Amino acid sequence: MTDNQQLDEFGLIAELLAPLADNEAAEKLSDDAARVSVPDGQELVISADVLVAGVHFPENADGGLVAKRTIACNMSDLAAKGAKPHGCLLMLGVAPHWDSGWLADFVDAFGDSLKTYEMQLWGGDTVRATQGFAGLTVHGLVPHGEMLTRSGAQDGDDVYVTGTIGDAFLDLLRGGAAYADPQPPLAFGQALRGLANATIDVSDGLMADLDHLCVASGGVMEISAEHVPLSEAGKVHGDIKAMVSGGDDLQIAFTAAPQKAEALVKLAATLDIKLTRIGKFSSSPRKQALLLAADGTEIILERRGFRHF
Amino acid sequence: MTDNQQLDEFGLIAELLAPLADNEAAEKLSDDAARVSVPDGQELVISADVLVAGVHFPENADGGLVAKRTIACNMSDLAAKGAKPHGCLLMLGVAPHWDSGWLADFVDAFGDSLKTYEMQLWGGDTVRATQGFAGLTVHGLVPHGEMLTRSGAQDGDDVYVTGTIGDAFLDLLRGGAAYADPQPPLAFGQALRGLANATIDVSDGLMADLDHLCVASGGVMEISAEHVPLSEAGKVHGDIKAMVSGGDDLQIAFTAAPQKAEALVKLAATLDIKLTRIGKFSSSPRKQALLLAADGTEIILERRGFRHF
Repeated sequence: MTDNQQLDEFGLIAELLAPLADNEAAEKLSDDAARVSVPDGQELVISADVLVAGVHFPENADGGLVAKRTIACNMSDLAAKGAKPHGCLLMLGVAPHWDSGWLADFVDAFGDSLKTYEMQLWGGDTVRATQGFAGLTVHGLVPHGEMLTRSGAQDGDDVYVTGTIGDAFLDLLRGGAAYADPQPPLAFGQALRGLANATIDVSDGLMADLDHLCVASGGVMEISAEHVPLSEAGKVHGDIKAMVSGGDDLQIAFTAAPQKAEALVKLAATLDIKLTRIGKFSSSPRKQALLLAADGTEIILERRGFRHF
Repeated sequence: MTDNQQLDEFGLIAELLAPLADNEAAEKLSDDAARVSVPDGQELVISADVLVAGVHFPENADGGLVAKRTIACNMSDLAAKGAKPHGCLLMLGVAPHWDSGWLADFVDAFGDSLKTYEMQLWGGDTVRATQGFAGLTVHGLVPHGEMLTRSGAQDGDDVYVTGTIGDAFLDLLRGGAAYADPQPPLAFGQALRGLANATIDVSDGLMADLDHLCVASGGVMEISAEHVPLSEAGKVHGDIKAMVSGGDDLQIAFTAAPQKAEALVKLAATLDIKLTRIGKFSSSPRKQALLLAADGTEIILERRGFRHF
């Protein structure tokens, strides 16, 4: 219970978030539910991610960073599913030190991201919390039956990854754009429909996520450590084990048949996406991704990813 | 980051929640997104509510109570929209004292509620939190264009409310089923399509929610205090001001044309729902609900509802 002096749910929604929900489904949050139509022949891809202060972002993170990372983590899920962003609902747990300035930064950045990703705000809930959090349920659209999944990898597929790996991990140590303002490859993900056999977003850590894909697809991957794409900063840092398990990359890893290689290279060039072939997938009861050194020996990892729990 | 001894996101999801997601959209949470089709001629009604420990439920609440109230608060939104539950995503912030026993209670009750409401679990996210929270994004179905809203009240409409008012407030003081295991009138809400002109769920407090309806519909309500339905316990407590502002009732308030009265009485009898006419709605620039004593004087309320923020 709060008194009228304090910022309340209705005040916050009315003043800050409502202008962002200027769409037919939400009607500027005038009601407490959105009505959403799905175009003929399309289906929804729905995912949810919640980020908690002190776990997923620093306690003292500014509102802009929290907004950008909350949306980007969820956009990364949609990118790996080949989905086009449609709309979202925001659950915001407002920490005591998130004052009106913090909230204004959050809403500014949130609004910018909605525009960038061409996504509608449909609603949500705002509550008081001692530990701040931001959760988003995102809805994307794909043509019926065409959602990309983790489970379709075929024996003999090549394994690819977009962008560079490990930069978000390095940025957490140094501060930088890969962590604070990631750019999930959404258009590339949508173009992978019909080209990729299995996809996953790299969020827990490259090797942990490739493991998930191997489990879902029933096979083993041989990943060449020397081919894992690193930025210049990553090469300088040099610890490949930290890079491939650092997490938060928000890139797409996927498998595709070797005969798709040419089309993939062309697509990446067209969309200005860095694309690297990093290994092979084989059907196998050993459902795991192996990181191999240049001499073919396995590089044993003590940790394969950042556990979000 | 957690070590392998600790319960992690994947372990928790795999062991406890996955069996609840045995549906085509989520495929037992084997991927990190659900694919959802919307039947021809239907549209989605989407709403989100998050409940935080120490704000929306006691810090020491058991898992069953948190699960039931989280789902019920969201079902109440769907009930007031005339929607049939379809599927949901759960965001769970697991407090340090929510041990495996607590989580098992939560999942048991959550699973029971999914069955009760014939709703699918499509996914979500589980994170570690110092302050526990449970957020749900729910999706209901309505025939295209038939979602009930707050904004359709017509001059001369009667105002009704289901159930009794104030029991959840009393139960919070005493412990009891109206708070711990509320039963939002979902079937009744669906049957209101075509009968009611404007609807809202009573969650903040009767008068606060009627205010929202008056604002959205552009009118004034005269609510008869002596007609507000109270339980025997409510009558004994006797403080009408506390009852109409206590919140958490999870009933439906609505307006309907006087000529619908007979159909509404029949419907309530068929569905075994207590239904009470409590006042009148008139179009007016004074967008507010007034609580009137038997002699017609206004009962002034210092507080009109529980603010969820």
